[in-house]
Amino acid sequence: MTKDIPMKFARTLGLLAVASTLAAPALAQFRKPEDAVKYRQSVMFTMGNHFYSRLGGMANGRTPFDAKVAAENAEVVLTLSKLPWIGFGPETNGIGKTEAKPAVWTEQAKFKDLSEKMQAEVAKLQAASRTGDLEALKAAYRSTSSACKSCHDSFTNQ
Amino acid sequence: MTKDIPMKFARTLGLLAVASTLAAPALAQFRKPEDAVKYRQSVMFTMGNHFYSRLGGMANGRTPFDAKVAAENAEVVLTLSKLPWIGFGPETNGIGKTEAKPAVWTEQAKFKDLSEKMQAEVAKLQAASRTGDLEALKAAYRSTSSACKSCHDSFTNQ
Repeated sequence: MTKDIPMKFARTLGLLAVASTLAAPALAQFRKPEDAVKYRQSVMFTMGNHFYSRLGGMANGRTPFDAKVAAENAEVVLTLSKLPWIGFGPETNGIGKTEAKPAVWTEQAKFKDLSEKMQAEVAKLQAASRTGDLEALKAAYRSTSSACKSCHDSFTNQ
Repeated sequence: MTKDIPMKFARTLGLLAVASTLAAPALAQFRKPEDAVKYRQSVMFTMGNHFYSRLGGMANGRTPFDAKVAAENAEVVLTLSKLPWIGFGPETNGIGKTEAKPAVWTEQAKFKDLSEKMQAEVAKLQAASRTGDLEALKAAYRSTSSACKSCHDSFTNQ
């Protein structure tokens, strides 16, 4: 623990006991299962904002198309799309206030498959966003949105 | 609203009324101030995990140094370091369960200055992480951590 980390902030992040959890790979990043749940929810909420509000606004004509802004937001979504999965460790099944269904843990192969399909669509979305072509962005946005929905339909109550 | 977005999820994200808020730039991304607060907290929590738990683990010797993992995490922190600021619009002063002090809004120049210093340190951290040199990472981690603390000391209860 370095002395220059705000201590209360460090406690919030669950860092003070992290050394005791190093034996469990997924838990190495989290002190307790609740932190993993909060982490995956934080990532999903942030990603959802950049995807649905920012990119969706342009793809659906609610906000003017700005190629630079679209590319920046797609880049953020691409980065975030890789992150939440570590927060779905088996120790988090049933933990906290969650919309995740038990199927996440009982149908892991399907969950992994759908999560990878989403990431593949996001990679295409990011590529499309760099063309500066609104129609390409719209098509990639729709495909990505379908991939989101496919996984949410099976694995969440949302 | 495209039909393929999970509706409950869209409601959670506050998208259904977004068209009415386009006049306010900061609110264009958020339906209501509470969503902006949740957004900035989600970004900060995610960033804190990658910074303090992942990079801090290596910088402080709690976890083995892995140059590739360090670079990946620094990249995530760099992306996230640019995001939370839009969530501190004036309409969010005093909203929700927050650790942000009113000083965020009464001392805006100082807040902006410290937030920019943090971002500059994170950029150096990302550069250091790409050298593969643990000592460079440690030094940049310490400087970045001090920049975090400096802003948290002035502007949050954490």
